[in-house]
Amino acid sequence: MTEGPTINTIARRAGVSIASVSRVLNGLPTREETVRRVLSAAEELGYVPNSVARSLKNRRTNQVAFAMADIGNPVYLAMVREIQPVLRAAGYRLLLHSTDADVADELDVLRGLGERYVDGLIMSPLRVTDEHLRALAAARAPVVVIGSVPEETGVDNVRADSRTGVRLALDHLYGLGRRRIAFVNGPPDTVPGAARAAAYREALDALGLPYDENLVEVGDFYRAEGATAVRALLDRAADVDALMCANDLIALGALDVLRRAGRRVPEDVAVVGMDDTYLAGVAWPALTSVSLGSERRGRAAAELLLDRLENGQRQARVVTVEPRLAVRASTAGVRDGTDDVPGAGEGTEGEESP
Amino acid sequence: MTEGPTINTIARRAGVSIASVSRVLNGLPTREETVRRVLSAAEELGYVPNSVARSLKNRRTNQVAFAMADIGNPVYLAMVREIQPVLRAAGYRLLLHSTDADVADELDVLRGLGERYVDGLIMSPLRVTDEHLRALAAARAPVVVIGSVPEETGVDNVRADSRTGVRLALDHLYGLGRRRIAFVNGPPDTVPGAARAAAYREALDALGLPYDENLVEVGDFYRAEGATAVRALLDRAADVDALMCANDLIALGALDVLRRAGRRVPEDVAVVGMDDTYLAGVAWPALTSVSLGSERRGRAAAELLLDRLENGQRQARVVTVEPRLAVRASTAGVRDGTDDVPGAGEGTEGEESP
Repeated sequence: MTEGPTINTIARRAGVSIASVSRVLNGLPTREETVRRVLSAAEELGYVPNSVARSLKNRRTNQVAFAMADIGNPVYLAMVREIQPVLRAAGYRLLLHSTDADVADELDVLRGLGERYVDGLIMSPLRVTDEHLRALAAARAPVVVIGSVPEETGVDNVRADSRTGVRLALDHLYGLGRRRIAFVNGPPDTVPGAARAAAYREALDALGLPYDENLVEVGDFYRAEGATAVRALLDRAADVDALMCANDLIALGALDVLRRAGRRVPEDVAVVGMDDTYLAGVAWPALTSVSLGSERRGRAAAELLLDRLENGQRQARVVTVEPRLAVRASTAGVRDGTDDVPGAGEGTEGEESP
Repeated sequence: MTEGPTINTIARRAGVSIASVSRVLNGLPTREETVRRVLSAAEELGYVPNSVARSLKNRRTNQVAFAMADIGNPVYLAMVREIQPVLRAAGYRLLLHSTDADVADELDVLRGLGERYVDGLIMSPLRVTDEHLRALAAARAPVVVIGSVPEETGVDNVRADSRTGVRLALDHLYGLGRRRIAFVNGPPDTVPGAARAAAYREALDALGLPYDENLVEVGDFYRAEGATAVRALLDRAADVDALMCANDLIALGALDVLRRAGRRVPEDVAVVGMDDTYLAGVAWPALTSVSLGSERRGRAAAELLLDRLENGQRQARVVTVEPRLAVRASTAGVRDGTDDVPGAGEGTEGEESP
């Protein structure tokens, strides 16, 4: 049995009696000099009272947290539905945080790992700041990031491939004869916003279509903001014949605006969403949407975290999930059913899906 | 300064040296007889090492949990959106559980309060079993229940009034000339299922309409189950001219089935949902829905919990939130906008909203 420092070794190191050490550690009135010597000896020896050690350091809480950017976006719901059974089967209870993509909130969750209320964390930040990277490096429990973080961060990382995803969507629209394909994005300073903006330009290039800044509008990854953005777009570019939306919520806002503007979908304007959430099937007409594999990403993240909890020493892994295009009525006029077009599957720089 | 038991008082009680007590409490090899005497003295005196006491007993975690029955039902989303800012303003971080209305899971969350990972809990069970009542009575931290629990349970309780809500909806349908008003419910052994079934019969009675069991179908509070139930209903009672659905997810399923069956909404069949979630506005035609005040219930629950955390001794309170009817295209053919009809506001036995 290898013994860590105890009250006895502290007493020897401090040159005081065991009773004095016990008084100090129990917070009883003691001479100041004794307190100072005991505490400094305890610190030098790295002493943690055993019962505290058991409860705070070695204890398993059997809880794991998932910090989502927006509980209102069903893409996270799809992830939770996969994460929860994987963890539950391994004996873990899942706690959820909804951070509203607030950086301070996310950092707070990362730092809160020091309080050991969970054994590990899956997080899905929209922005990855230097502070995130520092907090990840200092995290007191294993973390898996859904979204893209630099490899050198050394955390397990599950990535989407919206580059290929946007290309699948634009190829599909082009194949339907659309040439004025607009793009409605979320904030370009987010990981997904930046990746999707770049992907749109690339896909236009590949199709030989010109990049027209009148066809690009930036809002946020919500329905109301999507509607506002599409209104502005229609005012500016009345000849638009397709809308590539950076997520399904934006696309729902687009459907509202087009309906009120008397533009038929898909006859006048085809609409494509992204994330292929269940809302795509609730919408009318049902929404063609790029699936970035939220279910598979959730499952991969849960499996990486479980593996890490069992095997803390292994190298960090990066998993990239292949996109698919789910074609529905909002582009193809298909009234029932869904046709899945598998992605090209080239792993590229992945990023997170809001 | 009132001192609790310390290593010194244990040593006196056990008749052993302070050094022996410290060895035992630190888990170091000690004679069995000494271990026995120290542990029994510690237990008699109710001794908890101070640092452990600080960390486990008196420590505030500044975290509060909300246990939802189904993260996929946006009624809980609406609650979270109100709960989170109230708690955040008071310095609390919100953790979420999705229990899938699983009783074992809910009991586990209640019992988990003993581990002190949160300072308090808001929960929203669909079924309230005797085990729930026992676990609530034994809970180691304050709990607020959204849903109906017996007053004698002595927990703070926020209730919906679906009785009045169903009456508002049926009055509205009757006013539109509908006489074959069917009811599509979730499981009748749930608190909301039982309350809504009773409310439907009562509302028919009040309108002088006969109760026809062919017009009642039971499924579950999800979209797919709602669709299955409505399919069975249409097979059995082709003359149905209105559907009262026990929540919005069921109503979405109903819209799908009616569309595929070629029945126009609202011309042939009017459809009413319940909970007035954002899905009512995503659906096409937009869904008339009974609002049971999920936002107000969430806010009330958060405020009750904060108040309880500051004032643990006060009497338990019951808050009942008044329903409203949000009229949209699925009954009235209104293509834009919403008309809110305030509820009669008579507080009756409240219950929970799935």
